[in-house]
Amino acid sequence: MCSPVCLDALYGCASRRGFIKKSITAAAAVACGARASSGTPVAPQPRSFTNVLDLTHPLFEGFPTFDGSKWFTMEKMFTFAKEKLNINRWTLVEHTGTHMDAPLHFTADGHSVDEIPVTDFVVPIAMVDISQRAQDDPDTSLTPDDVRKWEAANGPLPEGCCVVMNSGWHRLLDSPKFTGRDAAGRNHTPGFHAETAHMLAERNVKGIGVDTLSLDTGMETRAGAFPVHFAWLGSGRWGVEALANLDALPAKGAILVLGGPKVRGGTGGASRVIALV
Amino acid sequence: MCSPVCLDALYGCASRRGFIKKSITAAAAVACGARASSGTPVAPQPRSFTNVLDLTHPLFEGFPTFDGSKWFTMEKMFTFAKEKLNINRWTLVEHTGTHMDAPLHFTADGHSVDEIPVTDFVVPIAMVDISQRAQDDPDTSLTPDDVRKWEAANGPLPEGCCVVMNSGWHRLLDSPKFTGRDAAGRNHTPGFHAETAHMLAERNVKGIGVDTLSLDTGMETRAGAFPVHFAWLGSGRWGVEALANLDALPAKGAILVLGGPKVRGGTGGASRVIALV
Repeated sequence: MCSPVCLDALYGCASRRGFIKKSITAAAAVACGARASSGTPVAPQPRSFTNVLDLTHPLFEGFPTFDGSKWFTMEKMFTFAKEKLNINRWTLVEHTGTHMDAPLHFTADGHSVDEIPVTDFVVPIAMVDISQRAQDDPDTSLTPDDVRKWEAANGPLPEGCCVVMNSGWHRLLDSPKFTGRDAAGRNHTPGFHAETAHMLAERNVKGIGVDTLSLDTGMETRAGAFPVHFAWLGSGRWGVEALANLDALPAKGAILVLGGPKVRGGTGGASRVIALV
Repeated sequence: MCSPVCLDALYGCASRRGFIKKSITAAAAVACGARASSGTPVAPQPRSFTNVLDLTHPLFEGFPTFDGSKWFTMEKMFTFAKEKLNINRWTLVEHTGTHMDAPLHFTADGHSVDEIPVTDFVVPIAMVDISQRAQDDPDTSLTPDDVRKWEAANGPLPEGCCVVMNSGWHRLLDSPKFTGRDAAGRNHTPGFHAETAHMLAERNVKGIGVDTLSLDTGMETRAGAFPVHFAWLGSGRWGVEALANLDALPAKGAILVLGGPKVRGGTGGASRVIALV
């Protein structure tokens, strides 16, 4: 199915140790219940909004990937000039563009995108802004302290929320900084800290989101360690990556609508992410 | 790009006359302004909801198409057993599963999916139920009279709404009736009537939706005429097809969130369609 070239591309710097660590972490995550529901159900309360924002980058051939792989292509199948209608065919790797991750992405048998209840896709947003720090340190991560500071300023995380990292990377799509690839092939982009993933997995939090290409930092991703992916998706929750337009969001009060694909067995996929504010 | 086989598959029964008619209709539609905005902008008002419904069918290899063509395939690229993560690659024709149509689908240069303002994707639903009539006559269509009856019962169509046809076909995904293909290769499924499309194009209506595979009736679709596609998409609006779960919707009061793809130049695509009720 997949050539050694693309395997290498994904795992560029992966060490044998990294693989072993992943296996253990993943086994533990599965043992803890990859399909476990997150948090206690609460009776639905009326929610309201006035404005609609798009948190989605356009997807196109050449949308950045950490190693430059082309994960989306489009070919014309019918054209208006010839057949009087336009239809294209896409070839798409699930984890490109603004896209979601399902638990199945990093578990043996966690929920695929089609198995997640739709009610988990319409949730309050808690936006944690680490963009100032990230500007000076692209390897920084969203720590438990950042969440505690957010709560000190905004009150407890809303029940069943999505915690979104605003690292400022959503502004960098057209810049080499977006992938942060250095001469040695490492990627310098912010992400969640593994301790934060573990902390949030103990709370009623439905999802986490980032404006970078990975829930993990670029360094952890390229090293093949993926501690946040294993901890968070392994706990049965979803993630969303490469969010756009985060500066338009308030720290609190917006509602995220994750318009992810409903592909049977899908591990994730390009999504339309909308905020109701 | 496309073999004669699949062209034939799409246009099975298309006559030369059908092609000519389409060209004329399309030219007229483009002349009328395929990029024209629909309706007058209104200041945003607070909207509220309590529940979340999924109007999306799962997408899978073998999702029905009118002629049996396979428009979605998925292959495993990485597996948890081998690489400790799961990633799939999809090949997808834009117009399969629960999916949207952009104006570009049936115009020379109308808006593609990424060019439609996101505010047009969060709109009130006016659901017109013709399921009882369709049960006896699968070639029936949603007529201007049906819209007038809806308005007599529910008041004027909400500003900037999506008019959704409930033909009962959303219940038939697992039945041969879903494609309605007869021995002669014709398809018997309900759709909008062309006159309804023209009537709604004069109103502040953002989109139309169906629970069948085509905005047009199956017969019009397979004949290659597509009068509703040309009239409606040609007026610069969007459509959504193969909606699920419509019996859970009220006739009025729900909000549709069209989580369509944001692919640059996309003519449509598999979408997550959510109702806020």
